[in-house]
Amino acid sequence: MEGTVVVVGAGSWGTTIAALLAPRTSTVLWCRSGELAGQIAQHHENASYLAGIELPKSLHVTSELAEAISGAELVLMAVPSHGFRTVFEGVAPHLSSTAAVVSLTKGVERGTHSRMSQIVRTLCPTNSVGVLTGPNLARELAEGQPGASVVAFEDPAVAAQVQEQLHLGVFRVYTATDVVGCEIAGAVKNVMAIAAGISDGLGFGGNTRAALITRGLAEITRFGIAAGGRQATFSGLAGVGDLVATCTSPKSRNRSVGYQLGRGVPLSTVLASTQMVAEGIQTAAPIVELAASVGVEMPIAAQIAALAAQETSPQAALAALLERPAREEVDDAS
Amino acid sequence: MEGTVVVVGAGSWGTTIAALLAPRTSTVLWCRSGELAGQIAQHHENASYLAGIELPKSLHVTSELAEAISGAELVLMAVPSHGFRTVFEGVAPHLSSTAAVVSLTKGVERGTHSRMSQIVRTLCPTNSVGVLTGPNLARELAEGQPGASVVAFEDPAVAAQVQEQLHLGVFRVYTATDVVGCEIAGAVKNVMAIAAGISDGLGFGGNTRAALITRGLAEITRFGIAAGGRQATFSGLAGVGDLVATCTSPKSRNRSVGYQLGRGVPLSTVLASTQMVAEGIQTAAPIVELAASVGVEMPIAAQIAALAAQETSPQAALAALLERPAREEVDDAS
Repeated sequence: MEGTVVVVGAGSWGTTIAALLAPRTSTVLWCRSGELAGQIAQHHENASYLAGIELPKSLHVTSELAEAISGAELVLMAVPSHGFRTVFEGVAPHLSSTAAVVSLTKGVERGTHSRMSQIVRTLCPTNSVGVLTGPNLARELAEGQPGASVVAFEDPAVAAQVQEQLHLGVFRVYTATDVVGCEIAGAVKNVMAIAAGISDGLGFGGNTRAALITRGLAEITRFGIAAGGRQATFSGLAGVGDLVATCTSPKSRNRSVGYQLGRGVPLSTVLASTQMVAEGIQTAAPIVELAASVGVEMPIAAQIAALAAQETSPQAALAALLERPAREEVDDAS
Repeated sequence: MEGTVVVVGAGSWGTTIAALLAPRTSTVLWCRSGELAGQIAQHHENASYLAGIELPKSLHVTSELAEAISGAELVLMAVPSHGFRTVFEGVAPHLSSTAAVVSLTKGVERGTHSRMSQIVRTLCPTNSVGVLTGPNLARELAEGQPGASVVAFEDPAVAAQVQEQLHLGVFRVYTATDVVGCEIAGAVKNVMAIAAGISDGLGFGGNTRAALITRGLAEITRFGIAAGGRQATFSGLAGVGDLVATCTSPKSRNRSVGYQLGRGVPLSTVLASTQMVAEGIQTAAPIVELAASVGVEMPIAAQIAALAAQETSPQAALAALLERPAREEVDDAS
């Protein structure tokens, strides 16, 4: 469909963005499952991932990827990181040469350590590729709350053009050019949210959580700058903004996974209890490996990676973090 | 008393620090009210400001300032900013020439726009003066939760020496040298916490609060650097750490004042309902004026100053903030 925006992936975030776009722009939501696509089209509700939210009748839902992508001018990729490459391999052959691709996925691919924009670039080297990121708890936005986000493309002209296309009502989109920094901040904050949730679940208070967020931001910033990102990104909506929202909201699923772990629920039980993907569990290990490749230690992420591999307990992971001196503060006086 | 640490001010924070120090160090808590001093000494509880917490029997409590200060090697000032100068004028004549003074007060003096360390320096120009600051919700620490804080003196040797004196158990103290940055971060975060509380009280969610915290941090950082502070301070425990703890915890009194304002309770009623001081209300106006004197605009603090002066409503203040574009993100692409 010419001129349309296509959202690929009907999880809570993809569905929310599609619902915000549809009243203002021709919008298609692609859903892997034909059955869910049919249900959404019939009931104007995504009962699996965004129950209770009435979706606009103008939102077109389909499970036919080729049909959805052909002629799309903007493709928003909102699938989990572990399925991103496979789904995008289905998108690529149908993508117009002038279409821009935006990743809404916050993670790093296992094995290759690729950021999502790198996967897109490998498969479609001539298309513009960027990211949309920020403090965006999906359900709040779906319920009509205001919000703010950042769309980053290396070319500021493309960022401005995509910003124009993203008419999202009270959800404001600002432009940026630091794609690498935005992707790293988005991926790592999910890991930090698991640590913050564990702290809350174990009964620690606001001081401990704030100290974890502070050191999490330091980890994100060191890694992000070593990988080519810019300091300002980590101090902005894509950095501290997204980190704080994810680490402090009961609506964050990564924090919620950590919280349940802290309360003593086994990891397998936690993961089996939700259809949603806790990206922080998936991406902790590749993030630690990727950071090591640019010479950056990630103490918090390393504890979460060990936890995901069942090599430590929530208690031991948090104790290890609380015992470790916060070097950045000590260094300041030396 | 030779070699003792004297905590001046028996509010919740002063009482908490004194309680943490007393089991390890000879500690005196000075309390303005002789009646409260007597009650604390008798019941080992500060029922007015830290009810339900049993204080160490070794904690000496007095309302005699001269006696408390004479021979003290370390004086921790924990009185509200609006009373700081008057109380310190009582401290100064009795202060040993080798005693160090640490401000635990997070505010700016009305009228003079002085930071607390500047008041100390004016009255006792040869004594070392520093600050203790960080994500320190008093009650959590009083209940034995772990915590972390920063003690800053311009001379790193003095910071290290005071760090040695502050044996606070699971409450760790790190050193820093950026006194100005620490004081500005501590003072301004109280103002930001009122804005965050208003947002929560009006029913806005985690995305809006995170965006406010992000922009609050940007305000603090711009102002702090213009006033001579260092970037790293604002990214550390004294900056983002304290800001996040204060803006997100139900135990923060500044956030709580904002929350009640957001729920529709008049300011006078909110302030009359607590003995505790909401520094953010007191210091919003002097902070805006001080920032203007170094050429920095403070949009969030200006709204809270207008609110404190009853010149705007919580609804109008927040609406003004949500409507204002976040320039720092926009600038990134230009």
